[in-house]
Amino acid sequence: MPTHGSMTDSLDIARIEALLDDRFPQIHSGGRIFSIEEIGERNARVRMRHHERMLRPGGTVSGSAMFGLADFSVYVAIIATLGEAGIDAVTTNLNINFLAKPEPRDMIADVRLIRLGRRLAVAEVEMRSEGMSDLVAHAIATYALPTRDRQSQRAC
Amino acid sequence: MPTHGSMTDSLDIARIEALLDDRFPQIHSGGRIFSIEEIGERNARVRMRHHERMLRPGGTVSGSAMFGLADFSVYVAIIATLGEAGIDAVTTNLNINFLAKPEPRDMIADVRLIRLGRRLAVAEVEMRSEGMSDLVAHAIATYALPTRDRQSQRAC
Amino acid sequence: MPTHGSMTDSLDIARIEALLDDRFPQIHSGGRIFSIEEIGERNARVRMRHHERMLRPGGTVSGSAMFGLADFSVYVAIIATLGEAGIDAVTTNLNINFLAKPEPRDMIADVRLIRLGRRLAVAEVEMRSEGMSDLVAHAIATYALPTRDRQSQRAC
Amino acid sequence: MPTHGSMTDSLDIARIEALLDDRFPQIHSGGRIFSIEEIGERNARVRMRHHERMLRPGGTVSGSAMFGLADFSVYVAIIATLGEAGIDAVTTNLNINFLAKPEPRDMIADVRLIRLGRRLAVAEVEMRSEGMSDLVAHAIATYALPTRDRQSQRAC
Repeated sequence: MPTHGSMTDSLDIARIEALLDDRFPQIHSGGRIFSIEEIGERNARVRMRHHERMLRPGGTVSGSAMFGLADFSVYVAIIATLGEAGIDAVTTNLNINFLAKPEPRDMIADVRLIRLGRRLAVAEVEMRSEGMSDLVAHAIATYALPTRDRQSQRAC
Repeated sequence: MPTHGSMTDSLDIARIEALLDDRFPQIHSGGRIFSIEEIGERNARVRMRHHERMLRPGGTVSGSAMFGLADFSVYVAIIATLGEAGIDAVTTNLNINFLAKPEPRDMIADVRLIRLGRRLAVAEVEMRSEGMSDLVAHAIATYALPTRDRQSQRAC
Repeated sequence: MPTHGSMTDSLDIARIEALLDDRFPQIHSGGRIFSIEEIGERNARVRMRHHERMLRPGGTVSGSAMFGLADFSVYVAIIATLGEAGIDAVTTNLNINFLAKPEPRDMIADVRLIRLGRRLAVAEVEMRSEGMSDLVAHAIATYALPTRDRQSQRAC
Repeated sequence: MPTHGSMTDSLDIARIEALLDDRFPQIHSGGRIFSIEEIGERNARVRMRHHERMLRPGGTVSGSAMFGLADFSVYVAIIATLGEAGIDAVTTNLNINFLAKPEPRDMIADVRLIRLGRRLAVAEVEMRSEGMSDLVAHAIATYALPTRDRQSQRAC
């Protein structure tokens, strides 16, 4: 689903990463584990680097790390689609299904915005262990979008 | 809803913490942020210590940290109810609603198991900033329980 | 949780039922199966009359009927709390867990609004077979609220 | 995603419809509103005929009708994949997002099983007004599968 990483995408990815570094420096406080691989109109692909911090016994990835990957990836897709205005979007709901035991390797999240309204965005996230076709986890997330007709940035 | 911490509960809490330390030492790899405050028949109360690692701009708690609190608290309530057998339970679904901006302080999760079947447990989690009555977040989680008639510990 | 049915509530219940009859006459097209039993600040109790139309083999109630009960009950709680303005609220998400086989009798839904923001309301619904204490089903619903600063009634 | 309706599929569809008619005659008590259009390995497409019974003001389709479509379609995909054994599967969770106002016409549901374990099946459902590309609603459903090693048909 995501478009191939073209020069334009690369610039956009760099700009998004700069925005995020500026606003959420603590995302990387434990090391840079997320990298944006592709973005497109209403979609994104994000990689979560395999990292000891997120481990569970048996070397698999924790649910909490997969939640973080899903949440971050949707946020990236919203900013990729709405531009800088999207940075004030906030998660209101995230429903995650854990489908299979993840492999002890990088995870890839593919996001698709299935609704982009004036006030809410809804996204679907498919998560796979790198190089595998079966889903490891699946999430649906809702973000409240910043209102454009007000200065207020309070969530809805 | 949770019962008061009696002598019996205290012992049980200590035993649960010992079990968890033994099986999931990495939970505390970043410091001991969770503490079990109360357990009872089908319920539990868990505190998440306020900690720089989980912060978002403005000093609030990250969604990922709240996911981790909800997930861990349900796990505690299952072990408190089923005993050591519960340790092989695995999360299959977690649906979380973020309702209000958390305060920059400890968070308290109150868990209630609303279904305890042979194969699945379903739990509700209410999360509040310490000392506040309004909910900050609410979660519903499903765990697959280990089958008793098999040696296999694979998830359902 | 709902308040007792006082004279004031009774009047409010009658007013809500009149509003609903006016706006959604088709709710009762198959016979009057829902009745509002109690309303209060941010909560409501609704009864679903046992009715052949909603049956499944073995005499139990269909999932679709329970979905309808949950959705309607939350709508009632929103109107009870916001007044006539609430009538333009629309469901954006409903997550329902089926916990036990319902008895072949009336079902009672208890609703509690756990968030009432400017743009979104989130509610929890507990459903029981009449006279039973165990939950048959549990739902979390989100409604988009009509914006007050616009004439537009489009969903967010 | 569903395979094209071939002769083999047509036979299978007829067999599934016969099974459902036998076990759930009340599905069609208000007229035959569901028809199975396509089935395949782990997927299905089901049409819900536009019908006055399911209407809301403005001619749109009710949330309850869309819930019923999602639930039924997943059930069809499970039976198509597991065969007659699937008929004892029961819904344990259904999470539905309403994304856009449906048109007053038939609705099409496309189901994909994203997990088929020994004990649980998880499915994704995309719902569209006939002939439209945008999603009207999206659902994730979990079914408990009948245990093969027991006669018991109790849900997990």
